[in-house]
Amino acid sequence: MVYFPTVDKIHYEGRKTKNPFSFRYYNKSEIVLGKSMEEHLRFAVAYWHTLTGGGSDPFGSETAIRPWSHFTGMDLAKARLEAAFEFFEKIDVPYFCFHDRDIAPEGSTLKETNQNLDIIVALVKEQMQASGVKLLWNTANMFTNPRFVHGAVTTSEAGVYAYAAAQVKKGLETAALLGSENYVFWGGREGYESLLNTDLELELDNLARFYHMAIAYAKEIGYTGQFLIEPKPKEPSKHQYDFDAATTIAFLQKYGLQDHFKLNLEANHATLAGHTFEHELRVARMHGMLGSIDANQGDLLLGWDTDEFPTDLYAVTLAMYEILKNGGLGSGGVNFDAKVRRSSFEPEDLFHAHIAGMDSFAKGLKVAVKLIEDRFFENIIEDRYSSFKSGIGMDIRTGKATFQQLEAYTLGNQEKINKSGKIEWIKSQLNEYIFSE
Amino acid sequence: MVYFPTVDKIHYEGRKTKNPFSFRYYNKSEIVLGKSMEEHLRFAVAYWHTLTGGGSDPFGSETAIRPWSHFTGMDLAKARLEAAFEFFEKIDVPYFCFHDRDIAPEGSTLKETNQNLDIIVALVKEQMQASGVKLLWNTANMFTNPRFVHGAVTTSEAGVYAYAAAQVKKGLETAALLGSENYVFWGGREGYESLLNTDLELELDNLARFYHMAIAYAKEIGYTGQFLIEPKPKEPSKHQYDFDAATTIAFLQKYGLQDHFKLNLEANHATLAGHTFEHELRVARMHGMLGSIDANQGDLLLGWDTDEFPTDLYAVTLAMYEILKNGGLGSGGVNFDAKVRRSSFEPEDLFHAHIAGMDSFAKGLKVAVKLIEDRFFENIIEDRYSSFKSGIGMDIRTGKATFQQLEAYTLGNQEKINKSGKIEWIKSQLNEYIFSE
Amino acid sequence: MVYFPTVDKIHYEGRKTKNPFSFRYYNKSEIVLGKSMEEHLRFAVAYWHTLTGGGSDPFGSETAIRPWSHFTGMDLAKARLEAAFEFFEKIDVPYFCFHDRDIAPEGSTLKETNQNLDIIVALVKEQMQASGVKLLWNTANMFTNPRFVHGAVTTSEAGVYAYAAAQVKKGLETAALLGSENYVFWGGREGYESLLNTDLELELDNLARFYHMAIAYAKEIGYTGQFLIEPKPKEPSKHQYDFDAATTIAFLQKYGLQDHFKLNLEANHATLAGHTFEHELRVARMHGMLGSIDANQGDLLLGWDTDEFPTDLYAVTLAMYEILKNGGLGSGGVNFDAKVRRSSFEPEDLFHAHIAGMDSFAKGLKVAVKLIEDRFFENIIEDRYSSFKSGIGMDIRTGKATFQQLEAYTLGNQEKINKSGKIEWIKSQLNEYIFSE
Amino acid sequence: MVYFPTVDKIHYEGRKTKNPFSFRYYNKSEIVLGKSMEEHLRFAVAYWHTLTGGGSDPFGSETAIRPWSHFTGMDLAKARLEAAFEFFEKIDVPYFCFHDRDIAPEGSTLKETNQNLDIIVALVKEQMQASGVKLLWNTANMFTNPRFVHGAVTTSEAGVYAYAAAQVKKGLETAALLGSENYVFWGGREGYESLLNTDLELELDNLARFYHMAIAYAKEIGYTGQFLIEPKPKEPSKHQYDFDAATTIAFLQKYGLQDHFKLNLEANHATLAGHTFEHELRVARMHGMLGSIDANQGDLLLGWDTDEFPTDLYAVTLAMYEILKNGGLGSGGVNFDAKVRRSSFEPEDLFHAHIAGMDSFAKGLKVAVKLIEDRFFENIIEDRYSSFKSGIGMDIRTGKATFQQLEAYTLGNQEKINKSGKIEWIKSQLNEYIFSE
Repeated sequence: MVYFPTVDKIHYEGRKTKNPFSFRYYNKSEIVLGKSMEEHLRFAVAYWHTLTGGGSDPFGSETAIRPWSHFTGMDLAKARLEAAFEFFEKIDVPYFCFHDRDIAPEGSTLKETNQNLDIIVALVKEQMQASGVKLLWNTANMFTNPRFVHGAVTTSEAGVYAYAAAQVKKGLETAALLGSENYVFWGGREGYESLLNTDLELELDNLARFYHMAIAYAKEIGYTGQFLIEPKPKEPSKHQYDFDAATTIAFLQKYGLQDHFKLNLEANHATLAGHTFEHELRVARMHGMLGSIDANQGDLLLGWDTDEFPTDLYAVTLAMYEILKNGGLGSGGVNFDAKVRRSSFEPEDLFHAHIAGMDSFAKGLKVAVKLIEDRFFENIIEDRYSSFKSGIGMDIRTGKATFQQLEAYTLGNQEKINKSGKIEWIKSQLNEYIFSE
Repeated sequence: MVYFPTVDKIHYEGRKTKNPFSFRYYNKSEIVLGKSMEEHLRFAVAYWHTLTGGGSDPFGSETAIRPWSHFTGMDLAKARLEAAFEFFEKIDVPYFCFHDRDIAPEGSTLKETNQNLDIIVALVKEQMQASGVKLLWNTANMFTNPRFVHGAVTTSEAGVYAYAAAQVKKGLETAALLGSENYVFWGGREGYESLLNTDLELELDNLARFYHMAIAYAKEIGYTGQFLIEPKPKEPSKHQYDFDAATTIAFLQKYGLQDHFKLNLEANHATLAGHTFEHELRVARMHGMLGSIDANQGDLLLGWDTDEFPTDLYAVTLAMYEILKNGGLGSGGVNFDAKVRRSSFEPEDLFHAHIAGMDSFAKGLKVAVKLIEDRFFENIIEDRYSSFKSGIGMDIRTGKATFQQLEAYTLGNQEKINKSGKIEWIKSQLNEYIFSE
Repeated sequence: MVYFPTVDKIHYEGRKTKNPFSFRYYNKSEIVLGKSMEEHLRFAVAYWHTLTGGGSDPFGSETAIRPWSHFTGMDLAKARLEAAFEFFEKIDVPYFCFHDRDIAPEGSTLKETNQNLDIIVALVKEQMQASGVKLLWNTANMFTNPRFVHGAVTTSEAGVYAYAAAQVKKGLETAALLGSENYVFWGGREGYESLLNTDLELELDNLARFYHMAIAYAKEIGYTGQFLIEPKPKEPSKHQYDFDAATTIAFLQKYGLQDHFKLNLEANHATLAGHTFEHELRVARMHGMLGSIDANQGDLLLGWDTDEFPTDLYAVTLAMYEILKNGGLGSGGVNFDAKVRRSSFEPEDLFHAHIAGMDSFAKGLKVAVKLIEDRFFENIIEDRYSSFKSGIGMDIRTGKATFQQLEAYTLGNQEKINKSGKIEWIKSQLNEYIFSE
Repeated sequence: MVYFPTVDKIHYEGRKTKNPFSFRYYNKSEIVLGKSMEEHLRFAVAYWHTLTGGGSDPFGSETAIRPWSHFTGMDLAKARLEAAFEFFEKIDVPYFCFHDRDIAPEGSTLKETNQNLDIIVALVKEQMQASGVKLLWNTANMFTNPRFVHGAVTTSEAGVYAYAAAQVKKGLETAALLGSENYVFWGGREGYESLLNTDLELELDNLARFYHMAIAYAKEIGYTGQFLIEPKPKEPSKHQYDFDAATTIAFLQKYGLQDHFKLNLEANHATLAGHTFEHELRVARMHGMLGSIDANQGDLLLGWDTDEFPTDLYAVTLAMYEILKNGGLGSGGVNFDAKVRRSSFEPEDLFHAHIAGMDSFAKGLKVAVKLIEDRFFENIIEDRYSSFKSGIGMDIRTGKATFQQLEAYTLGNQEKINKSGKIEWIKSQLNEYIFSE
């Protein structure tokens, strides 16, 4: 069956044809900095938003017109899967991502749920083999079901913790079976509603124990994909433990987990935590922990996760700059954890939205490459910090300096005058790069 | 000279006398939980807000009427010092805190600046001996002078770094001389204006090197006071490196500094970072790093640091609960890093404000003691997490559990039903504690 | 059938009995300022949160245990109605509020929907007569159904506008039939997702026309209840037209509607708009437009509408002060537009939550009465603005002053010195009022 | 004397020359939509930020290197004035704006202050005549001096109100003398620190009386420039009365002032109030009250007014679209109420910053013109709201429809299906407009 009859496969046409279903900047085989755009960007479609989601919000029910929505149960799961691969092929992405419950419905027991999952996973494998589309990462939905109301791994009920363990165990087996390049942990319920009834320390200790068990089990089954943690500060929980990159790194360091995890960073989660996306990417990069990204954007005038498709070229350019400086994302990729607006409910909007996002990232990639080739930021930084390359500055950097020496230097030398940081000039130049590339 | 003629020493009078210059709850010698209120609370006056500050804001000049403000230069510093100790005595606090530049003016060179400081520090020492008032902590102002425009320790100019080292060296010597119980680092300029011209990694490496030098120098001069870092997310910088407790802990762990520092946490900094104060206190407590607090409150509808005197009894009660559970603050204390509003410009307002803050903390202490004596939160937590005390829960906590075991348990047992978290009931009870204590 | 077997009718017991299902402060027949507490507070239960809502959130499905939830369709509506009146009676409130779709399910056509509504409304009327519980206000749910995705009254589709008209027409008829004391308009979808595809002017013109039609129709059917508009700045829409009290008043003034409406103000909506609740109440009061309140509270560290039960006594006290100064709420009341937390999913939590809210308002009422009896704020204001009672100040207030006269006065007189605003002292005194009342 | 020796007059060079002191997009004589860019944009330099400001912030003293800063008193005022006109000429702007206290220092009495002002205003007039640079608007600084601590026009002290009247009287005379095209009211202290000690109604009544006096006085002296009010929600005050466009309009309507004022809207004030800049512009435009703009941008992750030079082309393009749809700004213009960062302290940065801002607006103008020429938004809107052009939709718009008719229509017709709002496609197209223009 064909689910998206109005849209053929999208091609790179530089948008000259006025065909709205074409790319302007994204040409997957175009080589930049020695690799194809496809290899640089490693785009993935998020199953939950694009295939499973229906456009409900806290005040409204679903609006999305999806040609497969008349099915129910396992039939729905199968139809949705067919639609998914039709979409992946037409939009021409190399990867997708899913939560366990996105692809197969829960049964009345875990056993039945796992059976549902087995059936669908087998079909997923067939579709992957037939299409060549790969799994960037999978994860476990441990936030929708009421059992996770008090947390999954950081629950107050040991039985729920056990359930979560069983679910992630299955998730790792699924990852191994489908050759998932990463396995993601996002703890939507790992946090608290109120500190007044929360044993913070026990919950965090339990979370660390869980990660150690996951590492052990992956080793046992020979699953070698990268483990990723996705920080988010709040929503649905009032406070989430993986608040931002730094908080997550503090946790991993405390519990001796830092060598087993990288971060999956999301733009909208960064801004909800009070940071720019590039800040979060830089922090992770500095720690060698930048693993993958969830590509989207938020509305900074709103206080919740809007998960919009990324179209702000400033943010995307700076994100791609960090990614290139990181030497790429390794086994990670650019996953569109983004949803069409509730008011963009037609199937075609899914194409418009992904084209908007992919083209924005392709453009951002090209601008970032030019910035790097010109050593634009590198020259600014080198010049600005040049005093650390010799004399007292070099002593500081090499650890030779002491307070006594630095005091003697200060008392014995005339004070150097600072130079302007020239932010306005830099921003003006950055505009030139973005608009003339 | 007498600077505050209208107010005599404040006494505990339970406010029955309608004397506005009296305490209602704070009675320093009253014993609760085996210690006097004075020992529990260890109140300190912040020299900068109360003696040096004048009520300017970004759009307006100083408004404060201070009977010593007609002096200038070193005369001003001396008059202010006399006023300070008169105030400490009248308001009857055991501690005070200062930045180097609060107490003595800068000269035209560091040498001259240090000479100014030496003169005043000698006078401070005299006043301390005469009055018995002690120094809770001192610190270096490395944010006001234009030289710190690009950062002090995280500057782009090596000479400025050297200057900062010389300044902190002197600060540690001052701490040793005055018997300061702690030495604080607050990095108002340690952060960035824009990531576009910032070498994040070099700046953080340099910061860590600086702390190692500080540790070495303190050891060398035999200064044994506690080192404290004070997190703040932003303002004056767009982004500050010590964003919050977790970020600061991540930094300390990464650079092997965690055994040498505790945190000085401020209520208004917590909320600017998106956290409640009690959250920050809990995080620090969990890591054994709760050192001291800057007692104030912010306005959550405003996006800047308002540094109001703390009067919200909800916040203060929960803060005191965390402090009591921490076994107190050790060498730390409750420092009123708070300023009277610009519109409260009369000398008497300094008394009203400190009375408001001290009484709020005294009341919060009493409520927190009652909560602990009744095991109010403890009973809730114990009951709520009871499933972790035996069976599978105990296996999880003791590290015996594996994914296989937990899956087997889940498949083999009927699912337990979660119990309500009862937040509304808890909040209602908390109101009773606060209002009937 | 009995739906809440564990809880008998709640009584005023001053909470001495340790019975958690009792009031401490709310004693409906207690007389304060010449009226019973019941008459002052006019409490209402919100049908949607307490009877219809199930605890879902954007990331999770329903958690609430409701003894009537096994029913479906009209049976569910009937069972819920019985439960509702059982709850009203046990918690002992005089009023309730509902949206049309809370009480009866939608059918496949408007005709069928209206038939469902007719059946239930007849039952509601019976229950009201039997119990004496009255309808504070009803309203139309024009936000849940997908048809309202682009707005209801401010839709881009004329047919949807017509539908909304038909729905409000029925709502007014329902109000007339049940003797509703007010009719509320809350425009959750009246706003925009993006200005890029919005005809702001047409939408606002259409909204004004709609209100004129509603006024005309109410007149035609002889419905004389008060019309209320409920401002909210955002959520679900990115921007809502009735952003706050001032914006709503600007709209009503522009379109000549100001004499036909008052405002129904909600605490959490106020803070989402960047205001305190008391600010919104004051603005409405100043315009003679304070009609009713939705009693709840938000979490100022979160950017969405949390609709928590009100327990913050500072906010509640100041709200009650404004209400008393307004001479009460007239035909309005205190409606608990508040929901138990998703983690408070047991039926008993509904009682704990309402007790918490009602007791907080009762306590707030008592404190506000004391403040007024003592003329606490009034004395402060009178003293502070006393210069406007004579001389040049009186000339200003009576409109006699001119720029020339005021300049002459300024040039010819020595400048008066401002007096402190004494905020810290006021806050300290307010704490005494709240804690010693 | 020459104050900016390193920079000659800036020319339009399309930035090909790599001369950083040149425009890329702004060519003042280039004709678009029938007018020169200069006429469209009417750029103005803000005296306070560019000439008077020194780069202090709440935690740091001034950093700016200004070649005239060694002067003091009236000499400083004169030197600054020379530098100002040198800057205006080099950067080639047609307008400037100032507060009274920016250009001349306060004396010890109002009389002396006015004498200082008279001397400088005479020099300003000479410079204006010699250079052809005109005054876009002037205003009174009624926020810096301590006398305004409780408000200027909304003060609690009648004498301060009189002082404000005298100051604005002089301001209107200055406006008349210099041919200022507008006179602006920005009420930085017109608001409250706390509602607890504020007589909101008296303060607003007094504000309205003041505006009526200003209208009367302008009439009396024959000053016909446009009166403008500049909304801002907060800072320095906790709450400012002119919170946003809608609030200001509500106030003007209530007091019968709406025909005498337009709005001067600022981008950063819009975002502090929770709105996009284009929203505020649209609201003002809809009311026929869009008068002028303060061109800058904020940092949405910070909660204070950062007043950055505008470089975000999305925001600038949408602002210029609203301005063009308004038929331009009439007597208003684009005033750079923006300051170089504290870390951009060299004189050259003033040029870089203004070039960045002017070029961004020139580019935004060109994109907006293309959008309008293509009827890009107009076609979207026309199509989207087409149902209001006939049938029931036309009846609604023409005021013929009634609830009965609309109900009958709804019951009698099959429901129309909504069409997608296509936001993602629109954003993608907008990117094409911005990047390919």
